[in-house]
Amino acid sequence: MKSVMVLNGPNLQRLGSREPEIYGQLDYVSLVSTLEKEGSSFGLSVTVRQSDSESELISWLHEAADSGVDVVFNPAAFTHYSYAIADACKVLTTAGPRLIEVHISNPHAREEFRRNSVITPAATGVIAGFGFDSYLLALRQLSA
Amino acid sequence: MKSVMVLNGPNLQRLGSREPEIYGQLDYVSLVSTLEKEGSSFGLSVTVRQSDSESELISWLHEAADSGVDVVFNPAAFTHYSYAIADACKVLTTAGPRLIEVHISNPHAREEFRRNSVITPAATGVIAGFGFDSYLLALRQLSA
Amino acid sequence: MKSVMVLNGPNLQRLGSREPEIYGQLDYVSLVSTLEKEGSSFGLSVTVRQSDSESELISWLHEAADSGVDVVFNPAAFTHYSYAIADACKVLTTAGPRLIEVHISNPHAREEFRRNSVITPAATGVIAGFGFDSYLLALRQLSA
Amino acid sequence: MKSVMVLNGPNLQRLGSREPEIYGQLDYVSLVSTLEKEGSSFGLSVTVRQSDSESELISWLHEAADSGVDVVFNPAAFTHYSYAIADACKVLTTAGPRLIEVHISNPHAREEFRRNSVITPAATGVIAGFGFDSYLLALRQLSA
Amino acid sequence: MKSVMVLNGPNLQRLGSREPEIYGQLDYVSLVSTLEKEGSSFGLSVTVRQSDSESELISWLHEAADSGVDVVFNPAAFTHYSYAIADACKVLTTAGPRLIEVHISNPHAREEFRRNSVITPAATGVIAGFGFDSYLLALRQLSA
Amino acid sequence: MKSVMVLNGPNLQRLGSREPEIYGQLDYVSLVSTLEKEGSSFGLSVTVRQSDSESELISWLHEAADSGVDVVFNPAAFTHYSYAIADACKVLTTAGPRLIEVHISNPHAREEFRRNSVITPAATGVIAGFGFDSYLLALRQLSA
Amino acid sequence: MKSVMVLNGPNLQRLGSREPEIYGQLDYVSLVSTLEKEGSSFGLSVTVRQSDSESELISWLHEAADSGVDVVFNPAAFTHYSYAIADACKVLTTAGPRLIEVHISNPHAREEFRRNSVITPAATGVIAGFGFDSYLLALRQLSA
Amino acid sequence: MKSVMVLNGPNLQRLGSREPEIYGQLDYVSLVSTLEKEGSSFGLSVTVRQSDSESELISWLHEAADSGVDVVFNPAAFTHYSYAIADACKVLTTAGPRLIEVHISNPHAREEFRRNSVITPAATGVIAGFGFDSYLLALRQLSA
Amino acid sequence: MKSVMVLNGPNLQRLGSREPEIYGQLDYVSLVSTLEKEGSSFGLSVTVRQSDSESELISWLHEAADSGVDVVFNPAAFTHYSYAIADACKVLTTAGPRLIEVHISNPHAREEFRRNSVITPAATGVIAGFGFDSYLLALRQLSA
Amino acid sequence: MKSVMVLNGPNLQRLGSREPEIYGQLDYVSLVSTLEKEGSSFGLSVTVRQSDSESELISWLHEAADSGVDVVFNPAAFTHYSYAIADACKVLTTAGPRLIEVHISNPHAREEFRRNSVITPAATGVIAGFGFDSYLLALRQLSA
Amino acid sequence: MKSVMVLNGPNLQRLGSREPEIYGQLDYVSLVSTLEKEGSSFGLSVTVRQSDSESELISWLHEAADSGVDVVFNPAAFTHYSYAIADACKVLTTAGPRLIEVHISNPHAREEFRRNSVITPAATGVIAGFGFDSYLLALRQLSA
Amino acid sequence: MKSVMVLNGPNLQRLGSREPEIYGQLDYVSLVSTLEKEGSSFGLSVTVRQSDSESELISWLHEAADSGVDVVFNPAAFTHYSYAIADACKVLTTAGPRLIEVHISNPHAREEFRRNSVITPAATGVIAGFGFDSYLLALRQLSA
Repeated sequence: MKSVMVLNGPNLQRLGSREPEIYGQLDYVSLVSTLEKEGSSFGLSVTVRQSDSESELISWLHEAADSGVDVVFNPAAFTHYSYAIADACKVLTTAGPRLIEVHISNPHAREEFRRNSVITPAATGVIAGFGFDSYLLALRQLSA
Repeated sequence: MKSVMVLNGPNLQRLGSREPEIYGQLDYVSLVSTLEKEGSSFGLSVTVRQSDSESELISWLHEAADSGVDVVFNPAAFTHYSYAIADACKVLTTAGPRLIEVHISNPHAREEFRRNSVITPAATGVIAGFGFDSYLLALRQLSA
Repeated sequence: MKSVMVLNGPNLQRLGSREPEIYGQLDYVSLVSTLEKEGSSFGLSVTVRQSDSESELISWLHEAADSGVDVVFNPAAFTHYSYAIADACKVLTTAGPRLIEVHISNPHAREEFRRNSVITPAATGVIAGFGFDSYLLALRQLSA
Repeated sequence: MKSVMVLNGPNLQRLGSREPEIYGQLDYVSLVSTLEKEGSSFGLSVTVRQSDSESELISWLHEAADSGVDVVFNPAAFTHYSYAIADACKVLTTAGPRLIEVHISNPHAREEFRRNSVITPAATGVIAGFGFDSYLLALRQLSA
Repeated sequence: MKSVMVLNGPNLQRLGSREPEIYGQLDYVSLVSTLEKEGSSFGLSVTVRQSDSESELISWLHEAADSGVDVVFNPAAFTHYSYAIADACKVLTTAGPRLIEVHISNPHAREEFRRNSVITPAATGVIAGFGFDSYLLALRQLSA
Repeated sequence: MKSVMVLNGPNLQRLGSREPEIYGQLDYVSLVSTLEKEGSSFGLSVTVRQSDSESELISWLHEAADSGVDVVFNPAAFTHYSYAIADACKVLTTAGPRLIEVHISNPHAREEFRRNSVITPAATGVIAGFGFDSYLLALRQLSA
Repeated sequence: MKSVMVLNGPNLQRLGSREPEIYGQLDYVSLVSTLEKEGSSFGLSVTVRQSDSESELISWLHEAADSGVDVVFNPAAFTHYSYAIADACKVLTTAGPRLIEVHISNPHAREEFRRNSVITPAATGVIAGFGFDSYLLALRQLSA
Repeated sequence: MKSVMVLNGPNLQRLGSREPEIYGQLDYVSLVSTLEKEGSSFGLSVTVRQSDSESELISWLHEAADSGVDVVFNPAAFTHYSYAIADACKVLTTAGPRLIEVHISNPHAREEFRRNSVITPAATGVIAGFGFDSYLLALRQLSA
Repeated sequence: MKSVMVLNGPNLQRLGSREPEIYGQLDYVSLVSTLEKEGSSFGLSVTVRQSDSESELISWLHEAADSGVDVVFNPAAFTHYSYAIADACKVLTTAGPRLIEVHISNPHAREEFRRNSVITPAATGVIAGFGFDSYLLALRQLSA
Repeated sequence: MKSVMVLNGPNLQRLGSREPEIYGQLDYVSLVSTLEKEGSSFGLSVTVRQSDSESELISWLHEAADSGVDVVFNPAAFTHYSYAIADACKVLTTAGPRLIEVHISNPHAREEFRRNSVITPAATGVIAGFGFDSYLLALRQLSA
Repeated sequence: MKSVMVLNGPNLQRLGSREPEIYGQLDYVSLVSTLEKEGSSFGLSVTVRQSDSESELISWLHEAADSGVDVVFNPAAFTHYSYAIADACKVLTTAGPRLIEVHISNPHAREEFRRNSVITPAATGVIAGFGFDSYLLALRQLSA
Repeated sequence: MKSVMVLNGPNLQRLGSREPEIYGQLDYVSLVSTLEKEGSSFGLSVTVRQSDSESELISWLHEAADSGVDVVFNPAAFTHYSYAIADACKVLTTAGPRLIEVHISNPHAREEFRRNSVITPAATGVIAGFGFDSYLLALRQLSA
């Protein structure tokens, strides 16, 4: 069974309590169980992790690079300024695996600063605006 | 069987002959047949259209609004300046149907002007960077 | 009886169904009949046309230039980028007739990009923010 | 008979002597008498005032807010920087009355800085480019 | 005899009536006959077309790409915003033929917005500022 | 008993009637009496003034400079453009007294233009976002 | 006794040794003891923490959100770029507690980049420029 | 004896007390007497006025326009934003008299915002950086 | 025989050795001999000069102005910043002769800074992108 | 008799032939003789030089620094970009002598790029807009 | 033997695997051993550390400040946004030790965003573009 | 013995007299003798030249390109605008030799305009901030 890593950036463990009109009512625990269950139905062994720490996310991207595992990545607020994580994404994709940037909501329909992503140039592709389904579409693409 | 409209913007009928290092080797005919065949396997009746004309694309978006049909839309170069098409997308999504913006390549990894989309704020979601699979992921999402 | 042409840009035929909190509840058919009726009460023979096509609008502006007819023009989304239509407006006003740019809502109270008009420098004057009355004020001015 | 206040900003008492190729040959006295006469023909009792003073204009806007009187306002140079007056316009329109911003010439056809209005977002609507008729159209609209 | 296509963008059929101090007194009919006659003296069979329609210009560029014909192109106002036409120019030059962008006047000596061309990066070369001779120099270059 | 001057800029006398969702329901009279009463409980003799006039505010700042009195200042809309008032603030703080800039609401959570203050570089400190309490905190600080 | 958390961002433990002309001579130990002592005199149980780590500050903000504790926050250099912390502040204030942003010096009187705060839009209010007293004013406000 | 008006903008009556390292030690009274005495030695009857009020300065510029008197003008902080005063300067110079903009210090060697003058395009000429001598050079030029 | 001056800016004597993928393989000596030979076939006596010195280029432009000789000018890197040369070009064209700006490659297809020309507003016309033929087209135009 | 150096930048030897509506009808020879004659009447021995060469102007500024001579400097087009000359001006004023920047016309009333001076921050003062009198006022100031 | 600390920012432990055309083929282990060996030949005891964590790098900079040790610092991606690290660098250099910013490649020859460093203003000096030798030059300078 | 050319840009012969707080007390003669002596101790025959002339610096860069000599280059003020010199640097490095850009002070800690270098993209590497040692580090690197 093929492994995939799902990485979540800062504050995403608060899903459900934070601005439900944007992020929906489902909480982080449901996200994890949905991804594990649905991923498995695509033949994927899905590991879901979350961190508020830039360096921990970088180390996970390095780990994925070393083990050749594709990554689904919601960088949350790091999307807009963490060149360090962007460089780690490039380390990953240069090493072979794919990296799909996902967003729960459509960042272009929100605050101005959310329209710029420093991660996208280092990503294989981007999926945004479909709630939890953004992750599921990414998993399905990686399962192909 | 649920209907979905796939709309393609200017120059996309030239797929395969134009910058194959960016758009891949497959041509527009393969795109159409792939979308029809795969869409049908998701239980969708897929109509694929292409136009270089802003007004024709707008009329198709109005048609979709009137018939309540979801749309997968690759606006190509119109992505970057056609506020008229953006308004038509808003007409569509205000009327009920979903509209998914797709791109074959990752626009953020190309020329500067390709990083800005006037369409995205009017779209339900965006999928970019997966070649023909960008369309297929969109179709699958609409089939759900 | 003096003739006046009223030209409407893209998506304006959808009036009433699109964002009623901005554009009001009245639909395009009412707009046409109001303009014809009220125009006639000012002694004007009013022709109302709508097109989503940049080139069709340009050809109507040329037609007005050739027949010396004043124009009331709601360029809708073309307001913000169509230098081709702006040049056609200049063709018109250089030939003699007046061109009044109208807007149903006040564009300065909406999205940032709606604050810039490439048409205004080529227009005789601008009237914005009065709903259908924007057109009627323009007609009255042209009837004087 | 319904009352309307017409307010004129700085330097407008110099009409006729200042740049006649832009503002026309008629002077401020003619403007006042035209507005009073024509306004009365629309059933309006028109009070015309002019001030070079930002605070005096603000106090007149407050007076209009208190007495529920609609305002026709040519902010002249204050158009481009007086957020204090813009706030007073908002005080007025929040209180109920309408405020129509007028300009004698078309500001978009003049110097760069004249293209930006800090007043427009607080106005009901804008009429520009018709000479004294800009005021008359505004009066007519308020008489309706 | 070698074929060359001369394409003219929006409003160019109005040459002679529009801003003669910029575009000169000669009209569009003279332009066509001059190009046909002079082109033939260079051994070229010159087809001259004009359209106000972005999509028609794109289709002509595709036609030239399919038939391997060099193009002289005056994009007029589309110069400044039509990325769709720019992409079609790239389709053409990728297919082999040359495309020379021409302008009657020197756009850098006019309004600010006329200084930016989205077409030039997709063109083989640019010739501007020589009146009708801009076209003739381009034809001569293509005849070499 | 130590004296403190509280100065209020344009439109603040309309508190309570203007955008109560931003400024709260309490009116200007309550503000004055609250400041006088609470100030006195801190051992301060508080003089509260309001003006829509830039020059009157400047003269009060000069008066404070001459009499060595600290100032609590809500510049309202002048915050964003009155370099003349900013210079007067500098005259004051150069002369010895402190000047605290206060705002009822948090300007960073409102329109874009409200995020820039030309006054702050000339102020001792800033307190914003606490309703009437912004003034009270400032008074308390000056009483220390 | 009501609890309040005081959070300090990167390098603030170096107070006293770093640029004393800006930050004053008092060191971080004095800051902590002053806040504890004075806070207690307002009836507050004050916990003072400092971290150079973005993720640790985020976790403390989450902790405050979970325990319903108001926060006084000096984000130091994170003020200018940490959207991750800004999102955590929004998590906090959405959950109920207040968050007051404080600065020892007046950032508008320093380097250009220090004038922009990404935190302020997510804060209840801001107090800046009063040395240690910025914290004390914030504590007093939260004690009310 | 020819008359000249010297107009001084906001805060200039505080000369000598405000930032002496920039403006020098001499106070406003010395400025007035120097200008009167030296002006008289050039055969000029010099009237020196100062106002913090934008509208008063405008009225003096109108007065000079009506009496055909040349003006030496130090607009102080109004230099940077008062388009109303700039328009009044244009009223003056259109009427015939000359207007010389003067500055005591060299604004380009100070804060960024002081480098932009909205007055200069409406002035006959500019003299800056010579202390009180800036005025004297202007008077001498007007005496010629 | 009519005289024409061909002026070349800095580093152009290095043609052939510098970035041959952009400038082609032919060297400066071939350029000179080609221009002399081909120019002579158009009935022109062509003088070709090159200088790395801004002032020498200016003096040649003055010389051409004095002797009434048309100029073909490749300003090389001076294109992007030498306002002194731009002024000299204006001296030339004001005196009568024409000046054609030429570029070997298409500057819009290269680095960002190469897209701006300070020379073009002072030139009669521009020809760019045709290798040595850019010069030959210019010579032919001047021979007409 | 005190010595003063008057330095003129590129193209100023063409005075009289270049754009007389801006620079006046008098030529460079008259400028030199006027300055010598008038300077001598102020008790100054005036040396007037002109160069199109940046390095020659720099060497003259160094010469003035070494001989302690004040300088009147019209940098012409170098005003807008020559940081090398600006540094030489600073060398001069650091060494003691004064440097007055002069302009014949008012640069703020001309093209956009002429509004920025890189020289002014290094100058003692600026005089602009008085034709040849700009130089004479500068000489008089240096004679004091 | 004098101690020096060499600090490396995020992703630098991946040297050799990441974009070898930019960073060279040598890996991080070689970097460490080269620096230790060469440093020792300059009489320096070199400690080499790497971290992906902003806070860990800050703590090491504080450690160096406390122990008075000079630092060679390659901030990698933090170069472009970490004001927190920039403040820690200032803590260090204010305390006495020197800090040399080094880069393996020349950041100005890469992506746009890599041209801006927030660290440089707080550094003693910068060395970039020499591969591992950038570090060795820095060590040599600190050994002097 | 290997040859190296050290080139110095405008005003550097004034070292010691110009802003000693930035450039140090040592003068240009000491710089030359230090570089010759120290270079020779690295086995380099060092030629040191200085010019205020852009074209002379370009000719020296061409000379180095022709003789295959590495260059240490302090472009001084030309750093910020001379694209002509930047092109000459590219001629040099394309021909084989290395070019090291050096600066005595750290330009990022000075005026805004000094932060941009047009030379760096054409340089092998950059060393800045170490006084004369910037040159010595460069020489040492070239001696390796």
